[in-house]
Amino acid sequence: MAAPPCIGSDSAGEVLSHYLHDQAGVFLRALAVTGQPDDDSETTLPLRRSARRIAAALHTYAPLTDPGWAEPFRTELGWLATTLSREHQHAARLARLLSALHRLASEEDSPHSYDRLAPPPPGPQPVRARGNETTPGSGPLAVGAARAGALLDRQLRLVRTRAHSAALQAMGSSRFHAVADAVAVLVSDVPLSAAAAAPAAHTLPALTEQAHARLTDAVGALPLARAAHPYTADALRAALGAEDAAERQDAPWHRVRSLLRTSRYACEIHPYDDVDAEPAGRLSAAARTLEQHREAAEASAAVASAARTPRIAPATAYALGVLHTDQRQEVEAARFAFARLWQRPASGA
Amino acid sequence: MAAPPCIGSDSAGEVLSHYLHDQAGVFLRALAVTGQPDDDSETTLPLRRSARRIAAALHTYAPLTDPGWAEPFRTELGWLATTLSREHQHAARLARLLSALHRLASEEDSPHSYDRLAPPPPGPQPVRARGNETTPGSGPLAVGAARAGALLDRQLRLVRTRAHSAALQAMGSSRFHAVADAVAVLVSDVPLSAAAAAPAAHTLPALTEQAHARLTDAVGALPLARAAHPYTADALRAALGAEDAAERQDAPWHRVRSLLRTSRYACEIHPYDDVDAEPAGRLSAAARTLEQHREAAEASAAVASAARTPRIAPATAYALGVLHTDQRQEVEAARFAFARLWQRPASGA
Repeated sequence: MAAPPCIGSDSAGEVLSHYLHDQAGVFLRALAVTGQPDDDSETTLPLRRSARRIAAALHTYAPLTDPGWAEPFRTELGWLATTLSREHQHAARLARLLSALHRLASEEDSPHSYDRLAPPPPGPQPVRARGNETTPGSGPLAVGAARAGALLDRQLRLVRTRAHSAALQAMGSSRFHAVADAVAVLVSDVPLSAAAAAPAAHTLPALTEQAHARLTDAVGALPLARAAHPYTADALRAALGAEDAAERQDAPWHRVRSLLRTSRYACEIHPYDDVDAEPAGRLSAAARTLEQHREAAEASAAVASAARTPRIAPATAYALGVLHTDQRQEVEAARFAFARLWQRPASGA
Repeated sequence: MAAPPCIGSDSAGEVLSHYLHDQAGVFLRALAVTGQPDDDSETTLPLRRSARRIAAALHTYAPLTDPGWAEPFRTELGWLATTLSREHQHAARLARLLSALHRLASEEDSPHSYDRLAPPPPGPQPVRARGNETTPGSGPLAVGAARAGALLDRQLRLVRTRAHSAALQAMGSSRFHAVADAVAVLVSDVPLSAAAAAPAAHTLPALTEQAHARLTDAVGALPLARAAHPYTADALRAALGAEDAAERQDAPWHRVRSLLRTSRYACEIHPYDDVDAEPAGRLSAAARTLEQHREAAEASAAVASAARTPRIAPATAYALGVLHTDQRQEVEAARFAFARLWQRPASGA
């Protein structure tokens, strides 16, 4: 297999260092403009993105770096990315759920009115309502929907505020500054191993392929043949069973989502030019479907959690049950989209 | 167009009379073995089927009979078929909902275990649980599912018992005996109009085609292009809105179901041999998908009605909300199946 032109005759360590250098630059530039107490969670996006990319690169190309340095550094980058992303996730979840409640409570945009248009993509529609405004109808059902919306609004705003405080606290902590210092080191010097001296053209493809192999194995464990058929109602299975049934059912899909991200980032370092392998565009599209899967799964879990609030009215509980199931249907829709996407080129080969 | 061989040189009236004669025989033979107070609702099936076929024939081929006789007779046949079918429908609805609750509350038959098998058809699975046995799990969700099952069991058994009494009462009524007498007349003599003397080969195809045209028009009013895409969540739209939103949304589909049945029965009298028209096998398959549509829609309405029971626990209401949405998803699955079935041969033409 010919080496991609970008690698040339550089050593593997040089290519990896170059990538880490770039990502560290993104991180440090983002750091200079964030960290204000009134920051929107979106301003931490470049921080989170570069932290995830650095961590993924250190994972995929682990043999090229000093493990005593890389392993704990990866853990800290993961902590940082997770802590900074929580506020954004809670905000997105609330918007998603209020939008779904609006759709469930309203007849506007009836299917008949856009029969001649293309169908909307599965997943969340644009947010059109907030809080108590989600009740264009009337009657007990609409009252239940309004109360469910108010309950979710209250609960998710609270966890969002807590996540915001936690993120601010994290960014002022010595732990955070230690991570930032370690990232700053990457700009000048990456602690490489002896293996990093080997030519990039030989070393990088093998490591990238290992990442793809882990992904392929994880995808192989998914019930794709079944998920490629619509309306199996599988994502609803045990929706009224054990509390952790959905989590257990979703776990293999979440694992694939995580490995997809790692594979996608690996492609940024070493463009995968083997025609038999996954094209990067397909990896991105597949990653988006599983991002939808995660968002819908977490949104439905938030609804189930809200339903455990003591002393809610039956109408509120009913609306939460409807919303929970609606989101589980979006989980199933995302699995369907992923299965179709993944199987399409395979069937053409 | 060549006349189908079965019509030969008979008059239209002769062919229609022959069919009505046969159906009247089925009705009278069924009548001789039913009507006992301990009858299962299934024993009235031949009665209902022949009553529906006679009424449909009198509708499709109305110009061939005396309207003063046929019109009120059709109304009475419709009353009889509806009254006798209610008990069976309530029993089927209860079985469907308890089966769905079982699926929602249990993890057995997990999707992974039959990934390599063909997917199950959309629609109700075989009944595997009754009443309070639907709780293999534990915790508040499972308790809610058990209570919801018990509530539905109680309510639907009650309406089923009432429907049984109503059917028995109807079969002992003078109204019923008048219908039976009118059916008995069909064995010897059908009050035909002057138009019935025309050759069957000319008259019947035109009338059958009119029935098909009414069906085609009604199908044309459905949002099929959209329904052919899975996971639109359209059947869930307004699930928490106005009380009659689902009914209004479902009505055009119910109308097509009814016209499909009429068209199917018309094919029994005059086999439709025009290759450009709907083959009878496709009509049956399409009718089955819309029968699923009706059953899921009525089951979800029964769940919504149960949720309006005063003083139910929030956990029960939550489980009913989940079950309601599950059945609306089966409504959507049935529309998807119908849309795909209907569009398939059309795209090949």
